[in-house]
Amino acid sequence: MSILVAIEGWDVPSWVERFQRLFPERKVVTLDEPFDRREVHYVVSWKHPHGALSGLPNLAAIFSLGAGVDHIMADPRLPDAPVVRVVDADLTTRMSEYVVLHALAHMRQLPRYMAQQRAGTWEDDRFQPCAGDVRVGVMGLGELGRDAAAKLRTMGFRVAGWSRTGRTMDGVETHSGEEGLDAFLARTDILVVLLPLTEATRGILNLDLFAKLAKDGPLGGPILINAGRGGLQVEGDILAALESGVLKAASLDVFEVEPLPAESPLWTHPRVIVTPHNAAMSHPDTISRLIADQIARLESGGALTNVVDPQAGY
Amino acid sequence: MSILVAIEGWDVPSWVERFQRLFPERKVVTLDEPFDRREVHYVVSWKHPHGALSGLPNLAAIFSLGAGVDHIMADPRLPDAPVVRVVDADLTTRMSEYVVLHALAHMRQLPRYMAQQRAGTWEDDRFQPCAGDVRVGVMGLGELGRDAAAKLRTMGFRVAGWSRTGRTMDGVETHSGEEGLDAFLARTDILVVLLPLTEATRGILNLDLFAKLAKDGPLGGPILINAGRGGLQVEGDILAALESGVLKAASLDVFEVEPLPAESPLWTHPRVIVTPHNAAMSHPDTISRLIADQIARLESGGALTNVVDPQAGY
Repeated sequence: MSILVAIEGWDVPSWVERFQRLFPERKVVTLDEPFDRREVHYVVSWKHPHGALSGLPNLAAIFSLGAGVDHIMADPRLPDAPVVRVVDADLTTRMSEYVVLHALAHMRQLPRYMAQQRAGTWEDDRFQPCAGDVRVGVMGLGELGRDAAAKLRTMGFRVAGWSRTGRTMDGVETHSGEEGLDAFLARTDILVVLLPLTEATRGILNLDLFAKLAKDGPLGGPILINAGRGGLQVEGDILAALESGVLKAASLDVFEVEPLPAESPLWTHPRVIVTPHNAAMSHPDTISRLIADQIARLESGGALTNVVDPQAGY
Repeated sequence: MSILVAIEGWDVPSWVERFQRLFPERKVVTLDEPFDRREVHYVVSWKHPHGALSGLPNLAAIFSLGAGVDHIMADPRLPDAPVVRVVDADLTTRMSEYVVLHALAHMRQLPRYMAQQRAGTWEDDRFQPCAGDVRVGVMGLGELGRDAAAKLRTMGFRVAGWSRTGRTMDGVETHSGEEGLDAFLARTDILVVLLPLTEATRGILNLDLFAKLAKDGPLGGPILINAGRGGLQVEGDILAALESGVLKAASLDVFEVEPLPAESPLWTHPRVIVTPHNAAMSHPDTISRLIADQIARLESGGALTNVVDPQAGY
């Protein structure tokens, strides 16, 4: 019943050590060394190389080290085992911190005032819009989207949500599916994106979508906050939309290619806030503990939770 | 029953016009022209020159154009009439926006990431503290402090409050008076100041107080957010505390002298965010309407609300 740590680009030795500590009786193996493929019952994956998980005849589950599973689902030779994602209250809280921080920072023009400070300029804009004037639209109403929507509401924003599948939320206007998207966008001044990355959502944040956002809002144009996945966005379209005034500003935590390449104009765009994909991280100790809990539950006859629907891809 | 507009430094003509529109039948006079002092029943004041309100035998009320009344109470020749302040739900909401924005910005290191962006650096600090790790202390539990405390709690911060007079709040640890101050400061990582400026609070934000803040917090040192009044703070002490590590960082919306003088080192301090006293402004139309409502209530036999306690000074 060994555990295969199939991780690329995220400190493999520390993960091996963590799982070895949680399962002192079991073998914890990696892709870098020979191991008995029949012994592997569990895989923990972060961007594993495609195909690396095939030929594991006793595989019982594949655990993602994050909330996102697109890096796993993209493997065309993925074995037929349950894929499990991390749902961590702490990660949800951090994501909402990021969303509320960036929504307020744009509304209250924090980048402008910080730039004014650097220039030594005392100049206010006394009658700024307040949260009650501003319509935030949250795309994606999973754990993350729902928590962010609730906290944005507490701050006074006028919040609506959109989901592919028609989820609803008490006290929040919700829209759903292709047919609900235009109405949702038309009433949105700040678009917060917390969608999973699937074949249905790849590239959804494009010029066509931006052009449908509210034009009559109080912020001088719509604002994009993407803390979901880089693959959701078309960065060339974001830049074009910023140039033409279709978008006023953006906060981006995720990018088509990460780290964001040095030559990307997003780095220096005066109306873009770039953060290095750290809106919401779970602590590795929390992640490994959650995975150990899932294994213990399964082995004592219980069912795995937070299993990905292979059709939906999340 | 004329209205005296006694304003310095805030667009007198627009205020005259606003009150004239609300009271078309009455005289609206200013300090710049001769007027019959016996006819003045109401004063609306913003930083009126000391002594300018004496010799008004029929004065019924003095209305501040803001939540603060320190500019009125400081007049040694203030006549013996009720002083009324503005309590505006919209202003309260805006103040909480500012407080939550700056608490999150410091905790999530937004200035660091914006500076990294300018330098083209992709470098995260994945396991940042989250709100549940951070203790915020709100000084002042009036309308503003209570709303800010509640919203900080929703974001997950561990919130306590301090008031001079022993106010309490459901679900929030409160401390009060001189004797409660040390314990409050000792558990505080982010100090949010929403105190009124009185003789008891002038200069309260000094090195002695900063030295009592928590030293063991997760932010690398305590953080000061002053959105109350500039007279609460000793700016030389803030700078000294930042230099010696007694304070880690600060967001200041108010200053001893405003606009902040060009030579102040606060402008260029890398760990200070300076905003131009615009954390929370009421719209002039809202203020003038609230004052007109008070006058109507008084003249129909009702009582003024939000009257200042002359002993407490707020």
